Amino acid sequence: MAQPLPPVPGIRLSAVPARIKDWQRDDLLLIEIAEGASVSATFTQNAFCAAPVLVAKAHIRQGDIRALLINAGNANAATGERGLKTAQQSCEGVAEELSIQARQVLPFSTGVIGEHLPVQKILDALPGAVDNLQADAWDTAARAIMTTDTRPKTASRTLDIAGETITIAGIAKGAGMIQPNMATMLAYVATDARIAQPVLDNLVKEAVSASFNRISVDGDTSTNDACVLIASGATGGAIAPDSEAYAQLKAALIDVHIELAQAIVKDGEGATKFVTVQVNNAASSEEALRMAFEIGESPLVKTALYASDPNWGRLVMAIGNAGAENLDTSKISVFLDEVQIVEAGGRAESYTEEAGQKVFEQSAFTITVDLQRGDASEHIWTCDFSHEYVTINAEYRT
Amino acid sequence: MAQPLPPVPGIRLSAVPARIKDWQRDDLLLIEIAEGASVSATFTQNAFCAAPVLVAKAHIRQGDIRALLINAGNANAATGERGLKTAQQSCEGVAEELSIQARQVLPFSTGVIGEHLPVQKILDALPGAVDNLQADAWDTAARAIMTTDTRPKTASRTLDIAGETITIAGIAKGAGMIQPNMATMLAYVATDARIAQPVLDNLVKEAVSASFNRISVDGDTSTNDACVLIASGATGGAIAPDSEAYAQLKAALIDVHIELAQAIVKDGEGATKFVTVQVNNAASSEEALRMAFEIGESPLVKTALYASDPNWGRLVMAIGNAGAENLDTSKISVFLDEVQIVEAGGRAESYTEEAGQKVFEQSAFTITVDLQRGDASEHIWTCDFSHEYVTINAEYRT
Repeated sequence: MAQPLPPVPGIRLSAVPARIKDWQRDDLLLIEIAEGASVSATFTQNAFCAAPVLVAKAHIRQGDIRALLINAGNANAATGERGLKTAQQSCEGVAEELSIQARQVLPFSTGVIGEHLPVQKILDALPGAVDNLQADAWDTAARAIMTTDTRPKTASRTLDIAGETITIAGIAKGAGMIQPNMATMLAYVATDARIAQPVLDNLVKEAVSASFNRISVDGDTSTNDACVLIASGATGGAIAPDSEAYAQLKAALIDVHIELAQAIVKDGEGATKFVTVQVNNAASSEEALRMAFEIGESPLVKTALYASDPNWGRLVMAIGNAGAENLDTSKISVFLDEVQIVEAGGRAESYTEEAGQKVFEQSAFTITVDLQRGDASEHIWTCDFSHEYVTINAEYRT
Repeated sequence: MAQPLPPVPGIRLSAVPARIKDWQRDDLLLIEIAEGASVSATFTQNAFCAAPVLVAKAHIRQGDIRALLINAGNANAATGERGLKTAQQSCEGVAEELSIQARQVLPFSTGVIGEHLPVQKILDALPGAVDNLQADAWDTAARAIMTTDTRPKTASRTLDIAGETITIAGIAKGAGMIQPNMATMLAYVATDARIAQPVLDNLVKEAVSASFNRISVDGDTSTNDACVLIASGATGGAIAPDSEAYAQLKAALIDVHIELAQAIVKDGEGATKFVTVQVNNAASSEEALRMAFEIGESPLVKTALYASDPNWGRLVMAIGNAGAENLDTSKISVFLDEVQIVEAGGRAESYTEEAGQKVFEQSAFTITVDLQRGDASEHIWTCDFSHEYVTINAEYRT
């Protein structure tokens, strides 16, 4: 794990064991946010979105959010009316303890789908959670929200803006079911800078688009995903969206999102490789991104990555499957890091299996496709498909 | 394997070893078609379609096809100009041996992508192949076209039409990379009935839509897929498309296609389960089919099938991911065979893990989703995702 995360003024955290499942670990995280903060979020696009997502969406629309409550072990998804009620109850529990209103609490759940949330356990754990709130608890927080993750995911930055030190800290969880549009992934990023609500609303979308919407572990999208960005406003004055300070802060915030997103891919279920897929000179950004995902999500490409087998036929197949209209395959080049494997749509003259294999044997590398038909370029991050992936997913519930 | 396939008057076959790879087996199949036959085909929609596909498409457009040449072990895909030339050369070789024209030959290749076809080996094997042509060779033909298939795939029917016995025989190959729109799959179905070219052209599309376009092993589409339907015309008079005889023949032909398609799923790489996904009462056929594939291709659903784990949360997640607009999840029911697992969007009151598990432990079962929002119903066939799948695909080339 990286170095400990710094406190973010205006934010306190508390991780406690609520025994959501029969385990010995922190599984409930409470995040308290100072009055006057801006809070923005993006949520899963799965039609079967979970009860806490529905409740969180309704609450955040009213603004003035003061607390987040996150539990691991149970997703409270596909739980019908009763699920909505338990999500609401947990917000009420937090509200009572913190003397705020229930609509000022955002609930989040991650874990098994379709089982009822043991809400009483959560309510019982809340007083202890509130007593335990502290600024310096980001690292235990990162552990409390883990499910099949093998390690906590954290990232931070500090910046000097107008003579003030501004801090950014972020945590994330998610390993399986990672896909664009927010897949079983939870991320919480906070800064003490002051950013107006509409500015933050745009910023979270841009940050997610540059980070969590560019990763893929297995192409499935979950019912519970959410990414929350908090600007507590505890330090310094409001940062105007056209200022140099804002540009600097925005870049750092996006960096933190990217670092967290990459950490999720690197911890993909059973993953042994971290692979960047870059598509250059496409006709449009949409075309480039679709092709990058087609390559990065193909089970045949992913098993070839696992085998350290530079099976360029599978790469070419995935390129051909990406729905790019009137694709002139004779113009296509493909590179594995600096090694050219495809030239003019066929195997590059200079290519040797040995050189390709050397690249694929690395734990991290880049596959670059050049379509030579436009000026749009996009990239995604993916991982390989291993025996371990099947084992984890075939045995998850038992 | 099923009972031996019967000869189809007007068709002769010959399987020989051309040593395309370093192996001891038949890997070259020649099919000779009587003069006056109708031949129709559908081909891969992958933009990177293989050299033989390009040549076969150009040839079939001119009609009057008299021979098919199929090799296993090398796909002649992504092989550029040289690939086109070798495909053309193999047609010329057949033409010379059979005293026909090269444009009357359709070439097909399956195997590793991106390596040059050893065309001289094919040319050398052709005289022996021609000497060996016989009507009664469907079963050895089915073996000669196998790649990662663990067993040959055959199906046949005989019908009595207007006092004549009409025969249908078919063979197919394909195990990995199976997906709608013709994925690394080759199928050849022949009948001795006389069917006019335009009628047969429609029939092959309908038959493929009802069979090979409804199967999925891993969601990838290959560069080489093709399905060919031959009506040799050797028996009986022309069958009018509005006749009872045609309806009967068409039903039997579609049955043969479905039997071959299902055999491919059952032999899916590493597959241990054969699963029908049925979506009922959708708003449109497109919506129903898309959802059936979303479920049938989800790696998380497929690993749950492998584990015999009726993880209904993953089913619900896949339903939610299928892009059905304004889906009212509270109306959704899901059944595992006759066992109701989801009712009104939540876990069915009557459901028990034991009952669900009993269904999932079978080698074949049906998952039925009822959306209660329209009257369109569609189904697909899929298989599970096993350790063996990863092993096969991580080691295919070595």
